[in-house]
Amino acid sequence: MDRRTFTHALVATALLGRRRLAAPPRVNGARLNAHLAELSAFGRNPQGGVSRVAYSDADRQGREYVTGLLRAARLDVRVDAGANIFGRRPRDTGLAPILIGSHIDSVPEGGNYDGDVGSLGAIEVAQTLAESGTTLRHPLEVVIWSNEEGGLYGSRAALGTLEPRELDLVSNSGKTIREGLRFLGGNPDALASARIAKGAYAAYVELHIEQGGTLDREKVDVGVVEGIVGINQWEVTVDGFANHAGTTPMDQRKDALLAAARFVEAVNRVVRGVPGRQVGTVGRIQAFPGAPNVIPGRVVCSLELRDLDAAKIRALYARIHDAADAIAKDSGTTFTFRPTVENVPAPTDPRVRAVIADAARSLGLSTKSLPSGAGHDAQDVARIAPTGMIFIPSVGGISHAPKEFSRPKDVENGANVLLETVLRLDAR
Amino acid sequence: MDRRTFTHALVATALLGRRRLAAPPRVNGARLNAHLAELSAFGRNPQGGVSRVAYSDADRQGREYVTGLLRAARLDVRVDAGANIFGRRPRDTGLAPILIGSHIDSVPEGGNYDGDVGSLGAIEVAQTLAESGTTLRHPLEVVIWSNEEGGLYGSRAALGTLEPRELDLVSNSGKTIREGLRFLGGNPDALASARIAKGAYAAYVELHIEQGGTLDREKVDVGVVEGIVGINQWEVTVDGFANHAGTTPMDQRKDALLAAARFVEAVNRVVRGVPGRQVGTVGRIQAFPGAPNVIPGRVVCSLELRDLDAAKIRALYARIHDAADAIAKDSGTTFTFRPTVENVPAPTDPRVRAVIADAARSLGLSTKSLPSGAGHDAQDVARIAPTGMIFIPSVGGISHAPKEFSRPKDVENGANVLLETVLRLDAR
Repeated sequence: MDRRTFTHALVATALLGRRRLAAPPRVNGARLNAHLAELSAFGRNPQGGVSRVAYSDADRQGREYVTGLLRAARLDVRVDAGANIFGRRPRDTGLAPILIGSHIDSVPEGGNYDGDVGSLGAIEVAQTLAESGTTLRHPLEVVIWSNEEGGLYGSRAALGTLEPRELDLVSNSGKTIREGLRFLGGNPDALASARIAKGAYAAYVELHIEQGGTLDREKVDVGVVEGIVGINQWEVTVDGFANHAGTTPMDQRKDALLAAARFVEAVNRVVRGVPGRQVGTVGRIQAFPGAPNVIPGRVVCSLELRDLDAAKIRALYARIHDAADAIAKDSGTTFTFRPTVENVPAPTDPRVRAVIADAARSLGLSTKSLPSGAGHDAQDVARIAPTGMIFIPSVGGISHAPKEFSRPKDVENGANVLLETVLRLDAR
Repeated sequence: MDRRTFTHALVATALLGRRRLAAPPRVNGARLNAHLAELSAFGRNPQGGVSRVAYSDADRQGREYVTGLLRAARLDVRVDAGANIFGRRPRDTGLAPILIGSHIDSVPEGGNYDGDVGSLGAIEVAQTLAESGTTLRHPLEVVIWSNEEGGLYGSRAALGTLEPRELDLVSNSGKTIREGLRFLGGNPDALASARIAKGAYAAYVELHIEQGGTLDREKVDVGVVEGIVGINQWEVTVDGFANHAGTTPMDQRKDALLAAARFVEAVNRVVRGVPGRQVGTVGRIQAFPGAPNVIPGRVVCSLELRDLDAAKIRALYARIHDAADAIAKDSGTTFTFRPTVENVPAPTDPRVRAVIADAARSLGLSTKSLPSGAGHDAQDVARIAPTGMIFIPSVGGISHAPKEFSRPKDVENGANVLLETVLRLDAR
């Protein structure tokens, strides 16, 4: 090492705040973005975007492509009973491995970044570590979870929360979950073997696009995810009295749709009425009998509330319920709430969060703490390992659509933050 | 005539305020109500009420039963190309006939009074006149219009407003209109022969149940119908922006359903905001894509306005349109209105109205002037003949449902008012 190189290393070390003399490894951004483009061929839609629905031929072909990349990164590949692909970089220090990864299945007519960035980003990290000859204390594993979009099936198999009755559900591919698992090389009859024990991993870190517009709007490079929000859904039924729209005077009506309209407004008012980032949505609605000339006697609609804090969801629901009671009393209708979905909030690990934030700052990137409003495999893994998530900006906040896009530089930034996070977690 | 009978006739004449010496004829209420019960057998539902949908076997059987009653009332029966049944009491005075009648087809799972009361009431009037040997100056005709509930098909055939393309529409019976007309003995290829010229009838009077709760609530015996309201319908499309319900903050949404909810409220507010009996209804609504976890990007709903005054409908629509514009501006959405139905209001004839009111009062019955919020064959006939409608109370305002009910005494009252109206119209 001549004087100039030594000085450069010293400066780099000082800038990064890390005790290493060699220049720290960095991912190959061009290669990573090229891999993203190559993966996009599997299930590409004529009008743009991708339909790589879990268990489809396109999914299987994409997984074969990704398996090739895992092997090229010198990882030992196996597929568990839940059809999750694991690529392991062995190391015999007796330490628990660090796990990184995401998924490559898409929604129907989805985009080329959701899941793909984190999957190929994790492989790029492994490849970079292999090429740079970096030795870690912990074994490193890359995971490609199966069927994330259909309902976190792969990660739930690994958690042991995939219930046997779910195996008979028909997925978007047309195959049942059971058939789909077999199709991808999993084994629905031996799901217990896929189960990962608590403490089996030192940490799990997932890189992902934001799927919202906050980072893009605020021109922030990297999001440090505080947790995956809890999601509660209800089916709400409003009962009034169906009657002739021509012969029933306005003051004699028990119009279920008018009451439901007031309810939709009340949900918005209540959710916006307190500080915070909670969201509340009525996404589905139907009026019965549903004819232009009949006053609706019944309306069925959905209610969804999301927040990082389960207590806040409960409090919002209580207020919405009170508002519905008042509307019911005023309009001569009744409201019935039936819970349909309850996903508890999954906070990320505070220490992993801090490492991600430090890693990003060491790379000169701006950061922002934010919740993930969308569900991710990380919410499952958070139950058994210290978990963190790294977000990169989604242009315009668009996701689950062909126009989903993250800039190549942001993709590269995200992978470098993941790499630096792995190095820092490994060093602790 | 002995002294006692003569005195009785004198008293009766004085009470009725009419210049006739013989006791005025009155319908046989028991017989009329028995006929209603007999007709209810055709298409009777196991759970009550009737499904005598136009062009069904039950409809044809009901028409055969009614044809028998027409013949028993000594009327000459014919079926026109529009499958309307006419029963005529011939008279060679050169005067135009007086037409009375209604329909006997029902909505699916309807009741036993809508249409039936006016049809059997008209036959009872003819029967009573025949039995009492009453001679009229005008010929009298009883009409049973075909397929009223499906869209006034029989009366529109007689008006010449049934369009050829409508013959291919599939009716509730499963048959096309063309097939249905043939099934009932009509002739879809010769509809022009069914056309009735303006002035062909001296008057048309239709007895009907109110199908609303006004008379029942206010304990009034007879409604004198001011006209059949105009009905305007629009398909309203609200365009926002569909987005992820978890990752899109509340202040970044263009929620089409929230905007539509405000619209539903605005319709109610505008329609109730001015004095009068106008009604406005949103009866159908659908959100797209319609998932609990997606902010609706589009909502399609119906709008219906009814009033006796077309100018008032236009004014209400203008206010509703303004309200929609304000909601659109506030919510970042757009509203599009597409007209789908426009039935102009059909006022009844003022002189016929006065005769009905006088006839009812002469029978000691209380009356109230009111619009018909529902459509009737009378709205078509009003274009070619001086038209009137007589309403009797519907208990609880229930109609188009098995629980539809009018008291036997009210049915009898209605038929007597129809009879007395015919006598008074004939005498003029």
